[in-house]
Amino acid sequence: MAKSNKNAGPEARLPKGFQDTPAEDIRATARMLATIRDTYERYGFEPLETPAIEYTDALGKFLPDQERPNAGVFSFQDEDEQWLSLRYDLTAPLARYVAENFERLPKPFRRYAVGPVWRNEKPGPGRFRQFMQFDADTVGTDNIAADAEICMLAADTMEALGIKPGDYVIKVNDRKILDGVLETIELAGEDNANRRLTVLRAVDKLDRLGEAAVRDLLGRGRIDDSGDFTQGAGLSGEQSDYVLAVVTGALGRREGDAGPRLRLNATLAAGFEELDAIEKLVRASGFGEERIRIDPSVVRGLEYYTGPVFEAELSFPVKNEDGQVVRFGSVGGGGRYDGLVERFLGSKVPATGFSIGVSRLQTALAALNRDKRAAADGPVVVLVMDKAELPRYQRMAQSLRQAGIRAEIYLGSAGMKAQMKYADKRGAPCVVIQGSNERAKGEIEIKDLVAGAKAAATIKDAKEWRSSRPAQFSIPEANLIAAVRDLLARQED
Amino acid sequence: MAKSNKNAGPEARLPKGFQDTPAEDIRATARMLATIRDTYERYGFEPLETPAIEYTDALGKFLPDQERPNAGVFSFQDEDEQWLSLRYDLTAPLARYVAENFERLPKPFRRYAVGPVWRNEKPGPGRFRQFMQFDADTVGTDNIAADAEICMLAADTMEALGIKPGDYVIKVNDRKILDGVLETIELAGEDNANRRLTVLRAVDKLDRLGEAAVRDLLGRGRIDDSGDFTQGAGLSGEQSDYVLAVVTGALGRREGDAGPRLRLNATLAAGFEELDAIEKLVRASGFGEERIRIDPSVVRGLEYYTGPVFEAELSFPVKNEDGQVVRFGSVGGGGRYDGLVERFLGSKVPATGFSIGVSRLQTALAALNRDKRAAADGPVVVLVMDKAELPRYQRMAQSLRQAGIRAEIYLGSAGMKAQMKYADKRGAPCVVIQGSNERAKGEIEIKDLVAGAKAAATIKDAKEWRSSRPAQFSIPEANLIAAVRDLLARQED
Repeated sequence: MAKSNKNAGPEARLPKGFQDTPAEDIRATARMLATIRDTYERYGFEPLETPAIEYTDALGKFLPDQERPNAGVFSFQDEDEQWLSLRYDLTAPLARYVAENFERLPKPFRRYAVGPVWRNEKPGPGRFRQFMQFDADTVGTDNIAADAEICMLAADTMEALGIKPGDYVIKVNDRKILDGVLETIELAGEDNANRRLTVLRAVDKLDRLGEAAVRDLLGRGRIDDSGDFTQGAGLSGEQSDYVLAVVTGALGRREGDAGPRLRLNATLAAGFEELDAIEKLVRASGFGEERIRIDPSVVRGLEYYTGPVFEAELSFPVKNEDGQVVRFGSVGGGGRYDGLVERFLGSKVPATGFSIGVSRLQTALAALNRDKRAAADGPVVVLVMDKAELPRYQRMAQSLRQAGIRAEIYLGSAGMKAQMKYADKRGAPCVVIQGSNERAKGEIEIKDLVAGAKAAATIKDAKEWRSSRPAQFSIPEANLIAAVRDLLARQED
Repeated sequence: MAKSNKNAGPEARLPKGFQDTPAEDIRATARMLATIRDTYERYGFEPLETPAIEYTDALGKFLPDQERPNAGVFSFQDEDEQWLSLRYDLTAPLARYVAENFERLPKPFRRYAVGPVWRNEKPGPGRFRQFMQFDADTVGTDNIAADAEICMLAADTMEALGIKPGDYVIKVNDRKILDGVLETIELAGEDNANRRLTVLRAVDKLDRLGEAAVRDLLGRGRIDDSGDFTQGAGLSGEQSDYVLAVVTGALGRREGDAGPRLRLNATLAAGFEELDAIEKLVRASGFGEERIRIDPSVVRGLEYYTGPVFEAELSFPVKNEDGQVVRFGSVGGGGRYDGLVERFLGSKVPATGFSIGVSRLQTALAALNRDKRAAADGPVVVLVMDKAELPRYQRMAQSLRQAGIRAEIYLGSAGMKAQMKYADKRGAPCVVIQGSNERAKGEIEIKDLVAGAKAAATIKDAKEWRSSRPAQFSIPEANLIAAVRDLLARQED
């Protein structure tokens, strides 16, 4: 099973669809997660961690767009023959946790969770088999105020991350409205479950594909750019028109509204009642249209939603892979789901929640803050000019660390030139140098790598460089910490 | 495969050997990890994240105490038939990463990593199948200063966590010393590899089992308390005596030392030379005997170590499960390993590192700080006295959040008494109450749950309680934020 290389050892390679995360991405994500966590905590949500592995039957089959049972999940058998799986989201493990601990939990139960999830799917560009989600859910209440609060939480989170109203909007819809529409065009009942799902998925693509393509997907089907055919829902032209009119908001619903009107039924009316209640609650707490907006086109792919659904959309322009300017789009979403805990307990446990796609949101923030990056975030590097003096260099590094400054000694065996190259690669703000001459005088040389790089851009030849020695200066050994502190402060400006 | 319950749904249960982590443990661990991260950053280590899943052949067979190939690992086949596994530690993925990115990495390469690892082993008390490690490694140098620095890093980490010298010590030994001893008692060579491993494992148990038991394990074998027999290394009495004398530090090694002396050979001498160099380096940076100590009994279970080995030991007393007072013991360890990257590249890439067992260290810190826990760390709960006024209550909670105070409205459907019970369960510092009477007066009642609980302990009957209404007071609605802030500040004192 191991591919052989010239050394007959295994080949060092990442499995397809997985990625290593480098330091700057880890730091940026950690800052983002801390801000989200802080906002969720302020809303009274408590952290919960569940393990990566669950019993397969406890996870259920709630993956979007998966028709085969257990497709899309990494699974293996335990010693007692029971099937285990890696979690594919954070909602299914929450349902298991709530069912298992129902008696002792405060109700409603608010929890947030952040962590990796795994999908055993075909990887593609930007499509990974391990990625991170950040979820908040309120379990055990059908109070519409819980849904309103999720919308407020999502809006406050975007703003805490520095995204302004207008650059983001939280869109809200209600699954009951689409359900009601499907009833009026006679697509209710068990027999039509698959066609309803096809309609939902078609409408979900409105933003990305536009009206004409969605009309095809509602009708006979559609051939996409690559030539693949997607089977449609088989609606008539009139049915498709009606669905499209509803989801594009072209129909009035109140007595006085001008133009064509919705065909109201009980389900539809219940949906509008919920949306009205949410709107009233969020407006009372100071969230206007530019932050939280009712939008009839929002669907969300998941089958299990039963009421309000939410989508956090970023509307500022970014360039896509082909260099075209597009809106960034969705960075998270959620909705009300009443069946997940019921699977275990047999009785309804209503719940509502919201999930952020962490790396997508991180990409968006990076696009927003592209020019704000610090130049040199590596440690100060103490060069080793004389191996016999290692303890002395080590002590210099240690004194910097004790002053709260990131520092290290060069631990390799190469000469001065390679050590300078190493310091550059590490993003060091400066290097600390003490050869035998400096040592005899009780001095240290400090070379400012940031100022040095700037100077290098303007100096013409090596001779001028050597004579001026830009950005390099001597200090008494006792002043090391103060001198490095000054230099770091200068670089910050 | 699903166990059925009365609702014919799946049973809500955690797989054996896995655990859910509640809010207070998550918060305590997050604080601890932030401190460790901060210390590692100061030493110039950079974060790296690798995925949970690797090719099985890339992970290799470096699990301690595993004789069957791939035993102890969760594995599954990918669609192209290649075997994948969940990582069992953070060192094997680091070796894969370094080999895959060797050319472009700064060398030496210092990285830290924190995350869950998985072992497919029989779970037991305190023995989980998913747990967290926190590692730091320096790859690509045989400089002994790298090992010295790992010891300093470990010591500084313990102190940053509030563990004082004397309550912890970093013990250092060198695998070459034991290797040299095994050579002098003629246990070198391929044929004796298994016996050498048995000797190492026996010595590794010295702390826990004592000299007599280790002597048995070095000789014929040992029957433990449960009656199980462990095969010994088959050393003669004289050989066992010599090994024990070395590891208990009973033998001198220098010309002038009194009493019996070590039988020196080249391997042994190389080991002592390394330990002397480490000692010189750490002492020069101000780490005395009480922080970093050379100790001939340290072994570490892993086969792959080739030079210095480290152990972070907590020596303060704690009570074990049976109520006996014991020393806490090891919370982390590591050492120098030169073969892991070589597996991929064919050439030696020397490395040294240190790994902390996160939950074990967390348990230790909890034992140290047992009486320092905050009383009420939940959110302020705004009671819902009148459902029609939900927007008003929501706005109150929102104004508290905007002031940076954790707050929520009660989202369930129960009455006053249940809401108070809910607030207690949530650890709320206070509840905010506005019924129709208060609303008419533009007032709010605040009930201090911490002061209330104290008062409840002293008040005799319900009548006295009602008349005095301890820890409850009225404020004008406009003063909500200031009043809650004052109350939280009073509770802090």
